[in-house]
Amino acid sequence: MSNKKISSREEDYSQWYNDLVIRGNLADYSSVRGCMVIKPHGYAIWENMKDALDKMFKDTGHVNAYFPLFVPKHLFEAEEKNAEGFAKECAVVTHYRLKNDPENPGKLIVDPEAKLEEELIVRPTSEAIIWSTYKNWIQSYRDLPLLINQWANVVRWEMRTRLFLRTAEFLWQEGHTAHATAEEAIEETERMLDVYETFAREYMALPVYKGVKPEHEKFAGAEKTYTIEAMTQDKQAIQAGTSHYLGQNFAKAFDVKFQNKEGVEEYVYATSWGVSTRLIGTLIMAHSDDEGLILPPKLAPIQVVIIPLFMKDAAVNNMLIEKAQELKNQLLSHNIKVKVDLDESKRPGFKFAEYELLGMPVRVVIGPRDLEQGKIEICRRDTKEKYLSDLMHADLHINQLLVDIQHNIYDKALKFRTDNTFEVVDYEEFKDVIQHKGGFVIAYWDGLEETANKIKTETKATIRCIIQNNEDSSKLCVYSKNKAKHKVIFAENY
Amino acid sequence: MSNKKISSREEDYSQWYNDLVIRGNLADYSSVRGCMVIKPHGYAIWENMKDALDKMFKDTGHVNAYFPLFVPKHLFEAEEKNAEGFAKECAVVTHYRLKNDPENPGKLIVDPEAKLEEELIVRPTSEAIIWSTYKNWIQSYRDLPLLINQWANVVRWEMRTRLFLRTAEFLWQEGHTAHATAEEAIEETERMLDVYETFAREYMALPVYKGVKPEHEKFAGAEKTYTIEAMTQDKQAIQAGTSHYLGQNFAKAFDVKFQNKEGVEEYVYATSWGVSTRLIGTLIMAHSDDEGLILPPKLAPIQVVIIPLFMKDAAVNNMLIEKAQELKNQLLSHNIKVKVDLDESKRPGFKFAEYELLGMPVRVVIGPRDLEQGKIEICRRDTKEKYLSDLMHADLHINQLLVDIQHNIYDKALKFRTDNTFEVVDYEEFKDVIQHKGGFVIAYWDGLEETANKIKTETKATIRCIIQNNEDSSKLCVYSKNKAKHKVIFAENY
Repeated sequence: MSNKKISSREEDYSQWYNDLVIRGNLADYSSVRGCMVIKPHGYAIWENMKDALDKMFKDTGHVNAYFPLFVPKHLFEAEEKNAEGFAKECAVVTHYRLKNDPENPGKLIVDPEAKLEEELIVRPTSEAIIWSTYKNWIQSYRDLPLLINQWANVVRWEMRTRLFLRTAEFLWQEGHTAHATAEEAIEETERMLDVYETFAREYMALPVYKGVKPEHEKFAGAEKTYTIEAMTQDKQAIQAGTSHYLGQNFAKAFDVKFQNKEGVEEYVYATSWGVSTRLIGTLIMAHSDDEGLILPPKLAPIQVVIIPLFMKDAAVNNMLIEKAQELKNQLLSHNIKVKVDLDESKRPGFKFAEYELLGMPVRVVIGPRDLEQGKIEICRRDTKEKYLSDLMHADLHINQLLVDIQHNIYDKALKFRTDNTFEVVDYEEFKDVIQHKGGFVIAYWDGLEETANKIKTETKATIRCIIQNNEDSSKLCVYSKNKAKHKVIFAENY
Repeated sequence: MSNKKISSREEDYSQWYNDLVIRGNLADYSSVRGCMVIKPHGYAIWENMKDALDKMFKDTGHVNAYFPLFVPKHLFEAEEKNAEGFAKECAVVTHYRLKNDPENPGKLIVDPEAKLEEELIVRPTSEAIIWSTYKNWIQSYRDLPLLINQWANVVRWEMRTRLFLRTAEFLWQEGHTAHATAEEAIEETERMLDVYETFAREYMALPVYKGVKPEHEKFAGAEKTYTIEAMTQDKQAIQAGTSHYLGQNFAKAFDVKFQNKEGVEEYVYATSWGVSTRLIGTLIMAHSDDEGLILPPKLAPIQVVIIPLFMKDAAVNNMLIEKAQELKNQLLSHNIKVKVDLDESKRPGFKFAEYELLGMPVRVVIGPRDLEQGKIEICRRDTKEKYLSDLMHADLHINQLLVDIQHNIYDKALKFRTDNTFEVVDYEEFKDVIQHKGGFVIAYWDGLEETANKIKTETKATIRCIIQNNEDSSKLCVYSKNKAKHKVIFAENY
């Protein structure tokens, strides 16, 4: 760890974020344009996210499978809206071999004789390849519902990339389900949105708004896109997960029909839903501070770090190590992820700063003086509160403390969001909030893309989601003053 | 499930294998040349393999990370031998955008204006991209050892593909470690080979030979390649995992140096090691029979299936269901993966055949007549043995039975291998074994690639691994009759 200070949120929020990602050992730039390396500390957070989500998917009846990385062009273009939505940002494989460069010994060139007859698209999302497969798997209503999830990498050739938030390659899960009726498919779409909301709340300690994207912002190929939207500490919105009702669009594009109970052939109804490594960026944006990461205990790769305060006396040090190991074993018996730092080459102050940077929720310091009183020092990362606590039953105390920290991080984020969410009816007030305060603006909208575009041009704020449809004729659009169609959330966004 | 019979091993081993993969619901062909779809049943086996291996990697000090899918060409070609080894089979991304085909409305073509300045290779293995990253991570001996594993997909444009055994895209893990000394790196290489051997034995119920590949068959870019080799039921060898000592080859290619304790700069020593979804193919080849898959309990997605024998009497059926659920809950308390089949639309005989095909280790049938005596019927998949057992304490019995089945599958495979492994000194005998009996031939070899090639041409047998170096001057090469350098295993192979 270099001791160069990280930028503060105040002075440069964007730089602060990058500093945390890099110096917090979460990810690194790579030699491939727009692609990141996810470092062990960052990947361990992703593993914890995956484990929790995977269990939630299985508990709701889904199974995992794996589909090819490549999509042949003729399949890619089959669902036209989907193809159009992704065509401008996809990596294309055109050749399957390199050969020695006759003019540069030791160098390789693409072998022009190994040109593919049909180009392969590196999947930006897998609807096309999956629905071309489902065609063979679905014949009858007995084959439905088909509830499959995939953990995979995908590639979207984004022009402006940002570690975790927008990278050319990212890791994600994509659920792809097939149903006999529209009702069932919509139910599934909403169920998975609820799963995402629960995951955000319970694991990421993140309050999110659930809602529906306006027509002009839905997923390419979807009938309806649901989203969860979180608030960052610079008061912008971040889309954290989406769930799409695809209607019969893909079934029609790939001719996937089933025989219903009455023996009649029908097109299948579909959903797809996904969250990605973007969640890690969201986590940082929502909770961390100017000293480093703040990780919710449920997702922290290490929840407790125990640091013995080494002295010059070896006998004392051995005793400290023994106490540290004892406490470690007690914590392990509560399934707490714990590390004892026995590195004698670094000073305690250095270690404290390092673990703050990495976001370990609880730090325990075991020193000889405190120990004489039967005490240890506990420092919680979220509030930086520091206090002495009894070594006796410290495991029980810490176990509860981790629960408290998880809740506190959530409560803090919820309070922040509440403090920065404003219901407005007047457009001047709208502009004032967006331009001077920042935050979420809840307002009525007439449902016209044109109105949304004008607001975006004038304020940079976009509609994050529809939280309610409006039937009340007295409610007017904040911009056009025409009759409002929806109650929506506006915000600037990542 | 169609009721078309699967081919027998006797009549067509190769077709038998394909039938099991397809009809056993493990994988499917896809619309992408050489790429497979891993179906839920197959993927669940992979998940079990991953979980067990991942724990073993972490227990030996490794952490996971994730590196980019793409390798820029100049990095790909940096380690020349490695590049040469993979150049002929790699997928190359040359463009990053599609556009509408002006001549075919609704169709897309590659946008010639979106040609990449430098081509990207879809990783066939990640040494190049990882070592170009390690350069930034390693400065001092304090940064070593670096013990990282990655779970990922890789692409090798194989000309002849085979579900699981050889596919253009496959899933694998690849460990990439960096060390301060050659000794430490070699120790790591051997440690991970031991991990693979333990995994094969304890989870896959698979005996393997451990050894070193001959020089001419080592991994492109390695100093030394270690392998585990298993025997299939058609008495061929299958390489199930490899561990490579890479020396300083990649460190030199990517200029990765560290300052040792004495303050002197040195190149880093490397290893890499991997196993892939090929293990699923190996598993099938080793244990399954003409009725379907035989899965070792430790890797079976479902270990016990309980089938109530439904009658016409609803009250009886309810009682059967109740008993089945009770037993299920008891089994769950032992962490046994159990399914109760309540489908009334299928006959018991159909279900029995289906679960045999899918490889469920234990089938429990609950029928009213047996139940009157307090009995249930148990059928084990490995031996097809069927017997009545007390319902009382059935959970304990089944828990032990699963252990027995796991051992029995291993013992059977070990006996098969022993019965089909021959030590020979005479070349005529060698040919006789390979051509008429099949199996592994243990013999002495003079260490010359030329000799190995002649043997291969004459018999199709290749050297699978060196199991012992030879110092005894009386031991002569089975072919050349010159002084032997190694004791090796010959076999035909997948």
